[in-house]
Amino acid sequence: MSLDPKDWQDFKTLAHAHLDTLLSHVENSAQGPVWRPVPDSVKTQLAEPPPLDGQGLNAVLDDFNHLVLPYATGNIHPRFFGWVHGAGTPTGILAEAAAAAMNSNCGGRDHGAILVERTVINWFCDLFGLGPKAGGLLVSGTSMANLQAVAMARNKAIGATARTCGNAGLKLVGYTSIEGHSCLTKAFEVLGLGSDSLRRIPVDSSFRMNTEALEAAMLEDRNAGRIPFMVAATAGTVNSGAFDDLPVIAALCRSYDLWFHVDGAFGALSALSPSLRPLTAGLDLADSIAFDMHKWLHVPYEAGCILVRDQTHQIAAFGGRPDYLLTGQALAGGDLWPADLGLELSRGFRALKVWFTVKELGFDALGAAIAENCRLACWFAAKAETNQMIHLMAPVSLNIVCCRLQPPTLNPDQWDSFNADAVAHLQTSGVAAPSTCRIGGKVCIRICIVNHRTTEQDMDILLDALTDLAARAK
Amino acid sequence: MSLDPKDWQDFKTLAHAHLDTLLSHVENSAQGPVWRPVPDSVKTQLAEPPPLDGQGLNAVLDDFNHLVLPYATGNIHPRFFGWVHGAGTPTGILAEAAAAAMNSNCGGRDHGAILVERTVINWFCDLFGLGPKAGGLLVSGTSMANLQAVAMARNKAIGATARTCGNAGLKLVGYTSIEGHSCLTKAFEVLGLGSDSLRRIPVDSSFRMNTEALEAAMLEDRNAGRIPFMVAATAGTVNSGAFDDLPVIAALCRSYDLWFHVDGAFGALSALSPSLRPLTAGLDLADSIAFDMHKWLHVPYEAGCILVRDQTHQIAAFGGRPDYLLTGQALAGGDLWPADLGLELSRGFRALKVWFTVKELGFDALGAAIAENCRLACWFAAKAETNQMIHLMAPVSLNIVCCRLQPPTLNPDQWDSFNADAVAHLQTSGVAAPSTCRIGGKVCIRICIVNHRTTEQDMDILLDALTDLAARAK
Repeated sequence: MSLDPKDWQDFKTLAHAHLDTLLSHVENSAQGPVWRPVPDSVKTQLAEPPPLDGQGLNAVLDDFNHLVLPYATGNIHPRFFGWVHGAGTPTGILAEAAAAAMNSNCGGRDHGAILVERTVINWFCDLFGLGPKAGGLLVSGTSMANLQAVAMARNKAIGATARTCGNAGLKLVGYTSIEGHSCLTKAFEVLGLGSDSLRRIPVDSSFRMNTEALEAAMLEDRNAGRIPFMVAATAGTVNSGAFDDLPVIAALCRSYDLWFHVDGAFGALSALSPSLRPLTAGLDLADSIAFDMHKWLHVPYEAGCILVRDQTHQIAAFGGRPDYLLTGQALAGGDLWPADLGLELSRGFRALKVWFTVKELGFDALGAAIAENCRLACWFAAKAETNQMIHLMAPVSLNIVCCRLQPPTLNPDQWDSFNADAVAHLQTSGVAAPSTCRIGGKVCIRICIVNHRTTEQDMDILLDALTDLAARAK
Repeated sequence: MSLDPKDWQDFKTLAHAHLDTLLSHVENSAQGPVWRPVPDSVKTQLAEPPPLDGQGLNAVLDDFNHLVLPYATGNIHPRFFGWVHGAGTPTGILAEAAAAAMNSNCGGRDHGAILVERTVINWFCDLFGLGPKAGGLLVSGTSMANLQAVAMARNKAIGATARTCGNAGLKLVGYTSIEGHSCLTKAFEVLGLGSDSLRRIPVDSSFRMNTEALEAAMLEDRNAGRIPFMVAATAGTVNSGAFDDLPVIAALCRSYDLWFHVDGAFGALSALSPSLRPLTAGLDLADSIAFDMHKWLHVPYEAGCILVRDQTHQIAAFGGRPDYLLTGQALAGGDLWPADLGLELSRGFRALKVWFTVKELGFDALGAAIAENCRLACWFAAKAETNQMIHLMAPVSLNIVCCRLQPPTLNPDQWDSFNADAVAHLQTSGVAAPSTCRIGGKVCIRICIVNHRTTEQDMDILLDALTDLAARAK
């Protein structure tokens, strides 16, 4: 009844051919369009009913090669500039294959994967200078990491009854800037605090949280009988890459006894580059840090991380297991189970791809790739500034250029839809894939450089395409 | 600055050797011990500081082969009987490699991975008969799936203000049996409802929820001014594989207007086997179903799933996106974004391994492997019943045998520690890896058969080892 191959030799032959397909796909990632729409005929074939009889591996691989592989998101291509997507490396393929072969469950127990995860967590606690009591957990991404941070902060604020009695009508309030990520709102919703309990503090002209407004909001809430319990600062906002003033916010949190969380989804890893590291000053003061490894560390999706200055808060919020999972002897041993540090019990071996990537390439090369992305953003912005058609919409704080085509042949009230259409046109033509955002209510072209494969030449191709679109506007 | 290999040919040579290592590891999964402890020397080597300089792929693979691969959890071995761990298949390796190569972000947008996930979700909505409005989402596992189900039920009960105002002191109460999984407790904690709000209903002698006690508890809560809002029934309890009486609980939920959730972590997939399918009667009445594909579907960790009868509840609880993520044209298109259906924004291509597995093997073969596991559990229990040393502690409802060695040479008050030691001894010797649980307060040996590679011969080896341990007790 085994589901393993009937003929292992046949299987291995197909497997090696599949590996060649995958490696060629990555090796040639710069060839072809960044993105292509899925044709209707492919959509129809993908919508097949549940197969009762097996089709065999050969047919599956054939379908994969024709129906799936050509229609990826495009983020491994050097001219993918949309949102904040990591580019991956071929080593990530080998790591994910290895994790699947071992099929370790990293919820707990005494086995190697748990130790690899601990090593990886320690590397990043060290990087951010979180001190001797620090710990953390790999999670799916920063949405989950932020949610767990808010949960820890809430439970600390409520105290001993947090887990048994819940929020129990307490008027807890938290703070982030209007540029803070929407997943923080979602976290407040899911945790039963309600999004109204997350105050959105205004930003300055550099899109950094206005810390005077923050303090005023805290005082107002306190005077109104509410309980301020946390601030979620941002290290690298999604719209423009801005860093909040972490040391000042840390000091405010200390004086008002609030949990100081930093959402560093992609920005936190700037700490890997000596030239960018000053941006992250104050990160070492955080009570918790959320960030992603599938972004600027280029491990394949998914790998996010929640780090905490004092791991006892993590255990207090999430620890505890039923009889059948109690720490015992032998395989049931292990001194700290990841299941006690977060929401998940069944957990994959996410740490392996991080371990492969960091060991193969080293922190320094990974940091240099990040710095190069930021250099290209500045380089592009400098060129764009001399271009009559292109208007920069935000200072380049990191790796993101927010700009707007303003062709004089159009009325300014047409520029919003023109810019949205321009981005769609670039994507559909396959030349490049920036995304859009709104800054000051205006639709912008958002160029986010996260890909280690991106070169000056790629930026020039984008600039030429943008200029050309603007010149032809009518 | 690209992080890709400097020499692709060298890389490919190493990659193919690595694939051979991984496939041999799975092909020979029955050889060697089920589990081995990690030696101290290996622990020391794994605890290396963060590498600043890259070590290169060759060194990484060498470390992986020596420090990591030999120390897996053991669940691919046919005599792993612990907890509920899937066994994986070699096809899972190819699927995970493919997902890593594409590196698609499945939070949304218009690309192939989104369509593959929709197909997979539809397959399981069909399997469970959830009707035309059904939908769902792949998540990391049933812990997350249950949490999202409780969130949907809560938000439906609270109504329009659920997301903005939170639980707001409402006395919501939910119900599960005392055999219901601990992750439900965690869900109530995290969602700010508090674990006191989850009533634990007693079970009958077959470990099924006592539905009279359930109704009495609902009435008592209602009369006391609390708001009953959901029941989480279990399809396959973790201790003994028991199925709650789903049709009766569904009817109670309908008459009292409660959300009817089913935690079918592993049991739900019994629906794949014609002989076991009657156990799942009533699953088609559920408002939501949580289950895992990394268990009885044998895809590699992680892949869980939340299905919902009416997807509008999912969108109501989790939908909505900020400006930079609004559905637009081209790549930013797509008619339903997974990010609107759950907590995660960055999402990996989990669906691909499910798609590979089901297409390659088909629902029928996967169901037959499940039925064979259950047959082996009954076969083992029948043999154990004739064995003087072994006492069965629960009826075999599915794939789990809970038994207890009761050697007459020991005092009964020594049996708890004797059974715990016996399990540890089996694990340490590498012969087999059952786990322990408590039933009626007594430590049991819990033998959970989830592995498609397990044969009668494996069960005999376990039985002999247990008998031998009991015979040598003193």
